Amino acid sequence: MGVDLLFLGTSSGTPTRARNVTGLALLEETGKGWRLVDCGEATQHQVLRTPLSLHELRAIFITHVHGDHCYGLPGLLASAGMQGKQEPLEIIAPDGIEEWVRTTLRLTRTWLSFELNFHAAECLGEWRGDNLRVEAFALSHRVPCYGYSFTEARPDPRLDIDKLDRHGIPRGPLWGQLARGIDVQHEGRTLRSDDYLILTRPPQRMVVGGDNDRPELLAEACRTAQVLVHEATYTQAVANDARAAFGHSTAAAVATFAQSAGIANLVLTHFSARYQADPKRGLSIEAIRDEAAALYEGRLFLAEDFARFRLNWDGALRRVCTSNQ
Amino acid sequence: MGVDLLFLGTSSGTPTRARNVTGLALLEETGKGWRLVDCGEATQHQVLRTPLSLHELRAIFITHVHGDHCYGLPGLLASAGMQGKQEPLEIIAPDGIEEWVRTTLRLTRTWLSFELNFHAAECLGEWRGDNLRVEAFALSHRVPCYGYSFTEARPDPRLDIDKLDRHGIPRGPLWGQLARGIDVQHEGRTLRSDDYLILTRPPQRMVVGGDNDRPELLAEACRTAQVLVHEATYTQAVANDARAAFGHSTAAAVATFAQSAGIANLVLTHFSARYQADPKRGLSIEAIRDEAAALYEGRLFLAEDFARFRLNWDGALRRVCTSNQ
Repeated sequence: MGVDLLFLGTSSGTPTRARNVTGLALLEETGKGWRLVDCGEATQHQVLRTPLSLHELRAIFITHVHGDHCYGLPGLLASAGMQGKQEPLEIIAPDGIEEWVRTTLRLTRTWLSFELNFHAAECLGEWRGDNLRVEAFALSHRVPCYGYSFTEARPDPRLDIDKLDRHGIPRGPLWGQLARGIDVQHEGRTLRSDDYLILTRPPQRMVVGGDNDRPELLAEACRTAQVLVHEATYTQAVANDARAAFGHSTAAAVATFAQSAGIANLVLTHFSARYQADPKRGLSIEAIRDEAAALYEGRLFLAEDFARFRLNWDGALRRVCTSNQ
Repeated sequence: MGVDLLFLGTSSGTPTRARNVTGLALLEETGKGWRLVDCGEATQHQVLRTPLSLHELRAIFITHVHGDHCYGLPGLLASAGMQGKQEPLEIIAPDGIEEWVRTTLRLTRTWLSFELNFHAAECLGEWRGDNLRVEAFALSHRVPCYGYSFTEARPDPRLDIDKLDRHGIPRGPLWGQLARGIDVQHEGRTLRSDDYLILTRPPQRMVVGGDNDRPELLAEACRTAQVLVHEATYTQAVANDARAAFGHSTAAAVATFAQSAGIANLVLTHFSARYQADPKRGLSIEAIRDEAAALYEGRLFLAEDFARFRLNWDGALRRVCTSNQ
């Protein structure tokens, strides 16, 4: 779909000096328009260190109500308002988020220059945003939590010329609009673009989980997906301290699921602050990688703040070099 | 009072890459215990780059409900809870903040390991925290807004030995407790420490304003203060665009007030993002300094994130070198 993943926060629970709390941007390779999955505190601060603009933010998907996944929402909305954002913003979130955001804006006397349109994750169905189809999948956590799949709506479409001719639709501007995905009026009827497009390859599909202690709940979501982004808060050794692991997945559990589901690319994120790049300051983050790599044969990545990934047409996810921080 | 000022955020409205939104730590030189004035988003992230610990945070003073002064509260509280903070936290704030914080914690299913005690800024009276007396002063802004004065309760006290002898209070542990500021029971009566202490010098006093377009409202608060911290969001030239200046002060207005009030030390903060250290990226922050310096003859400082200031016994505020970021 030409959508890149740009991680804005990869720490669980609390920020560290190296990792912010959760936020993940999905942005079109071509630039315009991006979506955000989760919006932990200081996500807007992270955005300042990327090429992203709040003017171009189209939709925010929240996985669950815990603060490390949503406390950045009011500030990001307020800043977008102060910048004069005009386009409406879609917010897809579970119960509680709309009430919290609207209460916050009211009590803090914050007026936005753009519309907020909320959509309940609980009954999202198939939600369409530009060239993406989005579905929500219920997960298992301490509170209701959802993962989201992002699928290309029209992968490299070409016009079905035979069909257009058969239906007597004249060559010209109409064809151009249909080719660009626009439904048109012709002789009193609506012609749907989708009916005249032939898809030339299978759609790209990425699944982004929320906090979740049962990765297998994403089996159906992952069936035709090339990429799974999933939390791996702990290694198995740490998770055996049951209190810490409650509601979360280990690297081993996610890797085992991804292997059995045959997913080509797995990105782990949402790491406990006890895992550090410098093992002198805690456990080594490499323990997460080692645990997953022993059980998963696909392409394995550990997310870092500002890491950007691109799904190539060959189905391989690759890290993109960036120099914007 | 041996209290340092450590600025955590010095930008108005939205964060920039160089300045976070408002937050100011007042910390005892000796280490233990600190207070926070305002808590913009990502204040907890700033704290990570200082020697401050959330365990030692005693009180938070909020000037007003606008998001750039309070959106960091829920995340900071949640992180303090995850770190197992035990001591109660006092929150002094105007109407709306308690309702917002409690609603937020409820809707985001956040449980804290410590008590929150809210105190209304509107009727604070003289509030006592450890060795500080705090008063609130109503300001003029688009919403109800308060400045706070912080005054040493007992500057370098020594025991009034003559009085103790006159009142027949026996030498020993009782004297020690009274000397340390502790009220004691003696022969069925309460002896108040304050009644037996002689202060050896005038108390140190700092006034911290909130957003405010009438600095003169702080005249009474500043009467015996050595330090005023006040917003100077704009220069006069920019403020002449009336919309931008609404509810805020210019460097000129604050400097004029500080000069007439005879305040020895003035720290300006809360700068519009249009003022930049590198003038190629906007207006120069030096324009703020120049405008104030032309009207104010005391010691003038422009706050920066992580700048730390100490009020010396000679009444001069000085910047302290730090290397913790």
